[in-house]
Amino acid sequence: GHPMVLSLSCKNSRGIVHAVSGALLSVQGDITDSKQFDSPDTGTFFMRVEFTTPESREAVEAALEPVREEFAMDLGLWEASRKTRTLVMCSKDGRTLNDLLFQQRAGTLSVEIPVIVSNHLELQPMAFFYGIPFIHIPVAKDAEGNSNKAEAEAKLLDLVAEYDIELVVLARYMQILSDDLCRKLEGKAINIHHSFLPSFKGARPYHQAHDRGVKLIGATAHYVTADLDEGPIIEQQVQRVTHAQSAREFVIRGREVEGSTLSRAVKWHAEHRVLLDGKRTVVFD
Amino acid sequence: GHPMVLSLSCKNSRGIVHAVSGALLSVQGDITDSKQFDSPDTGTFFMRVEFTTPESREAVEAALEPVREEFAMDLGLWEASRKTRTLVMCSKDGRTLNDLLFQQRAGTLSVEIPVIVSNHLELQPMAFFYGIPFIHIPVAKDAEGNSNKAEAEAKLLDLVAEYDIELVVLARYMQILSDDLCRKLEGKAINIHHSFLPSFKGARPYHQAHDRGVKLIGATAHYVTADLDEGPIIEQQVQRVTHAQSAREFVIRGREVEGSTLSRAVKWHAEHRVLLDGKRTVVFD
Amino acid sequence: GHPMVLSLSCKNSRGIVHAVSGALLSVQGDITDSKQFDSPDTGTFFMRVEFTTPESREAVEAALEPVREEFAMDLGLWEASRKTRTLVMCSKDGRTLNDLLFQQRAGTLSVEIPVIVSNHLELQPMAFFYGIPFIHIPVAKDAEGNSNKAEAEAKLLDLVAEYDIELVVLARYMQILSDDLCRKLEGKAINIHHSFLPSFKGARPYHQAHDRGVKLIGATAHYVTADLDEGPIIEQQVQRVTHAQSAREFVIRGREVEGSTLSRAVKWHAEHRVLLDGKRTVVFD
Amino acid sequence: GHPMVLSLSCKNSRGIVHAVSGALLSVQGDITDSKQFDSPDTGTFFMRVEFTTPESREAVEAALEPVREEFAMDLGLWEASRKTRTLVMCSKDGRTLNDLLFQQRAGTLSVEIPVIVSNHLELQPMAFFYGIPFIHIPVAKDAEGNSNKAEAEAKLLDLVAEYDIELVVLARYMQILSDDLCRKLEGKAINIHHSFLPSFKGARPYHQAHDRGVKLIGATAHYVTADLDEGPIIEQQVQRVTHAQSAREFVIRGREVEGSTLSRAVKWHAEHRVLLDGKRTVVFD
Repeated sequence: GHPMVLSLSCKNSRGIVHAVSGALLSVQGDITDSKQFDSPDTGTFFMRVEFTTPESREAVEAALEPVREEFAMDLGLWEASRKTRTLVMCSKDGRTLNDLLFQQRAGTLSVEIPVIVSNHLELQPMAFFYGIPFIHIPVAKDAEGNSNKAEAEAKLLDLVAEYDIELVVLARYMQILSDDLCRKLEGKAINIHHSFLPSFKGARPYHQAHDRGVKLIGATAHYVTADLDEGPIIEQQVQRVTHAQSAREFVIRGREVEGSTLSRAVKWHAEHRVLLDGKRTVVFD
Repeated sequence: GHPMVLSLSCKNSRGIVHAVSGALLSVQGDITDSKQFDSPDTGTFFMRVEFTTPESREAVEAALEPVREEFAMDLGLWEASRKTRTLVMCSKDGRTLNDLLFQQRAGTLSVEIPVIVSNHLELQPMAFFYGIPFIHIPVAKDAEGNSNKAEAEAKLLDLVAEYDIELVVLARYMQILSDDLCRKLEGKAINIHHSFLPSFKGARPYHQAHDRGVKLIGATAHYVTADLDEGPIIEQQVQRVTHAQSAREFVIRGREVEGSTLSRAVKWHAEHRVLLDGKRTVVFD
Repeated sequence: GHPMVLSLSCKNSRGIVHAVSGALLSVQGDITDSKQFDSPDTGTFFMRVEFTTPESREAVEAALEPVREEFAMDLGLWEASRKTRTLVMCSKDGRTLNDLLFQQRAGTLSVEIPVIVSNHLELQPMAFFYGIPFIHIPVAKDAEGNSNKAEAEAKLLDLVAEYDIELVVLARYMQILSDDLCRKLEGKAINIHHSFLPSFKGARPYHQAHDRGVKLIGATAHYVTADLDEGPIIEQQVQRVTHAQSAREFVIRGREVEGSTLSRAVKWHAEHRVLLDGKRTVVFD
Repeated sequence: GHPMVLSLSCKNSRGIVHAVSGALLSVQGDITDSKQFDSPDTGTFFMRVEFTTPESREAVEAALEPVREEFAMDLGLWEASRKTRTLVMCSKDGRTLNDLLFQQRAGTLSVEIPVIVSNHLELQPMAFFYGIPFIHIPVAKDAEGNSNKAEAEAKLLDLVAEYDIELVVLARYMQILSDDLCRKLEGKAINIHHSFLPSFKGARPYHQAHDRGVKLIGATAHYVTADLDEGPIIEQQVQRVTHAQSAREFVIRGREVEGSTLSRAVKWHAEHRVLLDGKRTVVFD
């Protein structure tokens, strides 16, 4: 048997688990892990199942098809060993990129990264070290104040198509995406925001946090939506700070928690553990 | 429909989820939460299901009986609203007792506490305040060095029987239980150990921790077994300390984490979230 | 020698430590702990010293007087054993009150609580149990919509004067204080806000947090200022939550962290560890 | 003025702070941060001062000399900008090495790393990427069971001398050092142990932790001493785990906390924040 992952959501009703487990039984599926959640707020049922089966992916899909249809399910089925094709975008600060690349190579992050995109050149050596193509797409204004942002974003979308990208990760990419691009990437782009959202939206959050005198700083990994800093939250982590640390030291301490928060969000997404429940996420950790 | 909780374990094999969900479907069960775990170490399958049904507990039990038999399940079925009858044992330090009683009264801990037992009288006023009978069972040695421990433990077992006790909580009860009593209470007694086990077994763990110069102290809630401090761990929490704190201050800081750790373990047990997997616990949080 | 605590702040300049340590040496002071901080943002120097001395408080004060004058210090000097006289205000929810009272009695909180004030009667039995006078000051609107808030606050200020109160703790007191009262209590009133400020200001923060789908909830203990929820932060703590918990469960989990956060802030304040640096606090933990 | 760091320890007695601050005043020192601790267990006084001065290091040293002599101080004085010369040892697993090198290059770790030593070749590319000489010193047994460990250690000591090494960091170096080498490196070698010491000493700690069913795993950075796993602890961190994670997953989750724990310990050491108090450390964070 080979391991597979099934994730699904649908309007909640009686008999879903029985129907799904019946379909899996019909392809000799051995369930090794299963989690479900019934959202009282949206009336939606969510389920994630890990199982092994001697049958092919197609056979399993066929067995699930009547169930999918009956309950009008949003359903995904993957070989567990298959890695999510991921494009990483970065600018100058390499801490989160470094964390992602190291973990990817170490085999603890179920992604493959065929290409890295940056509006700067600082992190090109790191891409080289990990043997990943690095594409420089500068974003700038010309003398008359016209930005090439639209072309830059078109180029990015070309790369997403060309490389069969399933997930875009903004690893401290310091350009605001256009609403249009955000919509096109909805549900398949993850950003790391360097604050404990919804605190300190907008620019220079660590400086805002320092001004406010907080005792914990944090980072938030969330899906990208047109509404900046309002996307569904996947993971948040915090770090203790004191009065004795400057805003600059907040930034340094924050980097560590940013890398760890983003890596975890990417890991969960790549293992099909994150489902959308309106503006919230269901995370089957 | 009224809410119920089902928890079960059995040798792992194919078709368990389908069989269980089928039985629940036959009594019009709506599954609201379900978690399972397949232990690779012991080959045991664990499952906990919350569901609502218009049928009686007896009807559900009857529907599950063939499944229970087929898979030789260890199976428990409870009305979700039913509270676990709990006897709390304490000595002189009231912090963990105070936490348990406050949460029990606030309704956030699914237990009822018909009786408190102590080998000292210091905490009697607290029991009075919460309106709970307090029974003083002193344990001492006489002039010839003979202890009344055996009688004291017999008295405790009488109380367990008399009050229909399902769970005994040792809330900083400072007497070592006999092997025999431990065996009799196996799986239904929870102790709080004031260290991050397996570090600092035995007496005065905070002083041991201070001598060793640790930077975090912790507490461990575990099931009582004859092998002291070796019972299955239910929950552990830690607290940061520094060189500037004395052993006495370790004790004070530790109390907070002890109360929180023990309350959480009792809560999980009372909600039938803890199952035994050999010497480990499965906690369906 | 008896232990004393000195805390001071002044415009930063050279020679402060030497001058202070010289004054303490002149009264045979043995410094047991000393911490200082030089705030780059406000140019203010902060210092807290624990020492023992055979001399009286008056003698020490006299020795420090020239130093205080030379550097135009804001200076406080206390016997370490002296407890801060504290008035606690509460409404219906007793978790934070329970934590404060238990720790006060256990001797781990350096406060004495001569009186508790509430706009409700629910927590009177708890006050009785701890032997503390409980004064009921209801706040309500009459048929014509006129509130007695002004009289209620006047009554509170009378109590503050009558009982020689040095610190007012709002332990989940669910009435908004008037700007005028806030100003009068500035620097000597601590509130617990049930969110990780500045997130979720205003009403029902746990429900706001649940709607936003955060993965950590928190609590913030801060000094009361006229600008609601904007007072200097003393301590913050967080607690992990998941999609599976309802807003009501956020409230329950939050209570635990509120109690611990508020107790710690009160402890630090009572030990003269908290100094004000503009809108921020310096905490010499 | 240029920033300097002074750290000292001596038998506790009256007047130390006054004497030290007087000496600093004589070289126009502006104290920007100062912390002290009076260990009740060993009767030792510890102090760390950050200050700026227009004078040279030699002038400051001369000003402090009479004080050092009077109180028989163990005293260190450094330019704050001076980086600690550090040799890193590793084997095959690169996570902690990666964390150290990234932070070193990012400028957030006050060390320079002139050479990396390994008993394997796996991590050589990483050393190349960071432009650091990598010296392979294999340790093995020949056909007759004779190990070359003694020569390998001699070679290491040669490198320590040749490169003027002040700190040796064992970043998951999987060879046990001889007692003799441990003694020679005492106080200037830091190891990361992949458990929450003193739990799970010895081999395969994550597997031990998994067998025991703990709910938190941890890492401990400590000074190397002849008594293996018993050296003074500098920093400890933990990570939550559940029953659902295998021992292998404990290892993966643990790596993250190991890197963060070791980096922090190295940072503190390099900033002269760690002093030895018998078998414990004083950490002026």
